[in-house]
Amino acid sequence: MKILLIGGRGTIGKKLAAALGKLEKTDLIIAGRTSGDQQVDITSSASIRDLFGRLPLLDAVVCTAGTGYYGDFQTMTEEQMLPGIKGKLLGQINVVLIGKDYLREGGSFTLTSGVAAEQPAHNGTTVAMINGAINSFVLSAAQELKQDKRINAVSPGLVEDSLERYGALFPGSDAVPMTRVVNGYLRSIFGALNGEIIKVYQ
Amino acid sequence: MKILLIGGRGTIGKKLAAALGKLEKTDLIIAGRTSGDQQVDITSSASIRDLFGRLPLLDAVVCTAGTGYYGDFQTMTEEQMLPGIKGKLLGQINVVLIGKDYLREGGSFTLTSGVAAEQPAHNGTTVAMINGAINSFVLSAAQELKQDKRINAVSPGLVEDSLERYGALFPGSDAVPMTRVVNGYLRSIFGALNGEIIKVYQ
Repeated sequence: MKILLIGGRGTIGKKLAAALGKLEKTDLIIAGRTSGDQQVDITSSASIRDLFGRLPLLDAVVCTAGTGYYGDFQTMTEEQMLPGIKGKLLGQINVVLIGKDYLREGGSFTLTSGVAAEQPAHNGTTVAMINGAINSFVLSAAQELKQDKRINAVSPGLVEDSLERYGALFPGSDAVPMTRVVNGYLRSIFGALNGEIIKVYQ
Repeated sequence: MKILLIGGRGTIGKKLAAALGKLEKTDLIIAGRTSGDQQVDITSSASIRDLFGRLPLLDAVVCTAGTGYYGDFQTMTEEQMLPGIKGKLLGQINVVLIGKDYLREGGSFTLTSGVAAEQPAHNGTTVAMINGAINSFVLSAAQELKQDKRINAVSPGLVEDSLERYGALFPGSDAVPMTRVVNGYLRSIFGALNGEIIKVYQ
């Protein structure tokens, strides 16, 4: 089973890659902007097309790449929102729009949104907006994909491995164990779910 | 009470304008791309800034403008999604980011999302994504606005006046009476709601 993991060196991607790497009969290809087996810039549709073009047909495509602006809402501008929109939002969407033609029948996409879609963090309006967009995109794309291809989003809360870096943004949040987050992705990749927002924070 | 209605000549805007026009002590300013009392192109932050700059301080800003691409998912590209992203998504966001400084203390924003955020129509992935983004943006912005300013989204289902034009996209949907849709906006403008997605389809 050939799995492409975009963002495989990030906080979540690293742990997911380790879990997938232990499985038999799984051929894991890690893509990253500068690291991994393959390079891709998900803000560029040409780069995404190029990536899929040099890979074999895939059974699963997972994206854990992309983030968004955190900062004062009072002074926030469209320009500050754009990198996140081009990356985590349009980047993930383009991975699906382009990648669906490189996915084997019955294959799956697993995107990443986040708890902020319904429980926004202070100063995190851009991230909330992007996560809400990804969730609704997934609901819709699940209806549209052909050949039994599936798509889900994993929506993590504050994860254990981000406690140090992001904990202050989420006061009073119970950090989610990395194993639970990884399991969310495994349910999407190896299960039969389609059009699910797998909430790993409740 | 000074109310700015952006999109006041659209399907929903027309009916809302008529209802607001009947109220006493309400000073309604209708803005549209080519019609209305004031012209604005919400895809341009400069145009939005220009609009607010020539108006008095406002008590309520309502946006019923913007739409998104409907078409075959199999061939859909980022380019086809962009007009909706620049209009209904970033346009409405910019109305808030820029307009909040022209809104009186205690004033309100009312944006427009739609049922597709959680019940996407076939061929309507762009619209679903935009609506989901607007809903999460509103949840977050409601936490961030100062001086008791409020923000809500009205999320209409298929509305009566769109039955002829869009009915085929929503088979089996009960069309929502225009009075119910208008009431959703009135609840947001004149009530105390903040951070609510006012769903006019359930």
